[in-house]
Amino acid sequence: MGHTIRQKEKLIARVRRLKGQLDGVEKALAAEVPCGEVLRQLASIRGAMSGLTAELMEDHLRGHVLNVETEADRRDGAEEMIEVIRTYLK
Amino acid sequence: MGHTIRQKEKLIARVRRLKGQLDGVEKALAAEVPCGEVLRQLASIRGAMSGLTAELMEDHLRGHVLNVETEADRRDGAEEMIEVIRTYLK
Amino acid sequence: MGHTIRQKEKLIARVRRLKGQLDGVEKALAAEVPCGEVLRQLASIRGAMSGLTAELMEDHLRGHVLNVETEADRRDGAEEMIEVIRTYLK
Amino acid sequence: MGHTIRQKEKLIARVRRLKGQLDGVEKALAAEVPCGEVLRQLASIRGAMSGLTAELMEDHLRGHVLNVETEADRRDGAEEMIEVIRTYLK
Repeated sequence: MGHTIRQKEKLIARVRRLKGQLDGVEKALAAEVPCGEVLRQLASIRGAMSGLTAELMEDHLRGHVLNVETEADRRDGAEEMIEVIRTYLK
Repeated sequence: MGHTIRQKEKLIARVRRLKGQLDGVEKALAAEVPCGEVLRQLASIRGAMSGLTAELMEDHLRGHVLNVETEADRRDGAEEMIEVIRTYLK
Repeated sequence: MGHTIRQKEKLIARVRRLKGQLDGVEKALAAEVPCGEVLRQLASIRGAMSGLTAELMEDHLRGHVLNVETEADRRDGAEEMIEVIRTYLK
Repeated sequence: MGHTIRQKEKLIARVRRLKGQLDGVEKALAAEVPCGEVLRQLASIRGAMSGLTAELMEDHLRGHVLNVETEADRRDGAEEMIEVIRTYLK
C-alpha cells in the first residue's frame, strides 16, 4: 500500500480497535444484553468502519494519484479509486 | 436479548466471522497489500455488518414487539426499536 | 398508510423540500458550480432522505404494529416492517 | 464543474428522474398507499442518489485531479475530493 510506517501502525491500531469492539458485541450477545444495546454498539462500529474507509481512500488518493512517479501510475491509481467508489456507493 | 439458544449461537458465529474478516484486513495492511484490495475487503465487511444489524432488528421486532406478554412490554420494545432506527438512519 | 391528516401533511412537506433541494442541484449543475459544492448538496439531501425514511418506519411501527385491531394485522405489519428493514440494510 | 456538455445533460437528466421519483412518493403519501410501498420507493431513490454521487465523484476525479493544467490545480482538486469523502463517510 505504500503507507509510511507511522500511517501503517495507526491503521492497524484502528483495525484492532474494531476487533475489540466486535469482542464487546460477542460478549453482549453471549450475556443476553438487551437488543437495543447491542444494536447501538453495532451502529458505533459501523461509524468507525466508515472513518477507516475514508482514511484509506484519502491515503490512496495521496499515495497513488497525487504523489506518483509516472502519469501511467497516476491513471492506474485513479482507475482503482473509481472502482472502489463504485463498489462503496453501489 | 431473549434469543433462543440456536439463534444466539448463529449470531455469535456471525460476529466471529466479522472478526476473522478484520483479521484479514489487519494482515493485508501489515503486508502492504494494494489499497484497493483492502478497501474491497472493508466494503464486504460493511455489507456483513448491515446483514447482522438487519437480523438483530428482526429478532428484536419478533421477540420484543410481537411476542410479548403485556402491552407495556410491547410499548417498551417498540420505543427501543424506534430509538435504534433513529440512531441507525441519522 | 393510515397517517393522521396532520402527519400526512408534514410528510408531504418533507418530500417537497427534498424536491426543492434537488432543484438546487439541477441549477447548480446547469450553472457549472464546482463539483465539491454539488456533492455537499447531495450529502445533505441524502441525510434528509434518511430522516424521512426513519420517520416513515416509526409511523409504520406505531400505526401497523402497535396500534392495530387484530393480531393478524399486527403480524402483517411486522412482516412488512421486516421486509423493509432487509431492503434498506441489504 | 467543467463537465462536457454531454455529461452535463446526462447528469441533469438523472436529477430530473430523481425529482420524478419523489413526485411518485408525494402522490403515494397523498393517496395513502401502504407504508411498505412508500419505503420501497424511498430505498430505490436512495440507490439512485448513491449512483449519482459516485458518478459526480468519478467526474471530479477525472476533471479536477487527473486532467488538470497545473500541479497546484491537482492539489486543490484532490483536497476537495478528500473533504467530500469525509463528509460522505462521516
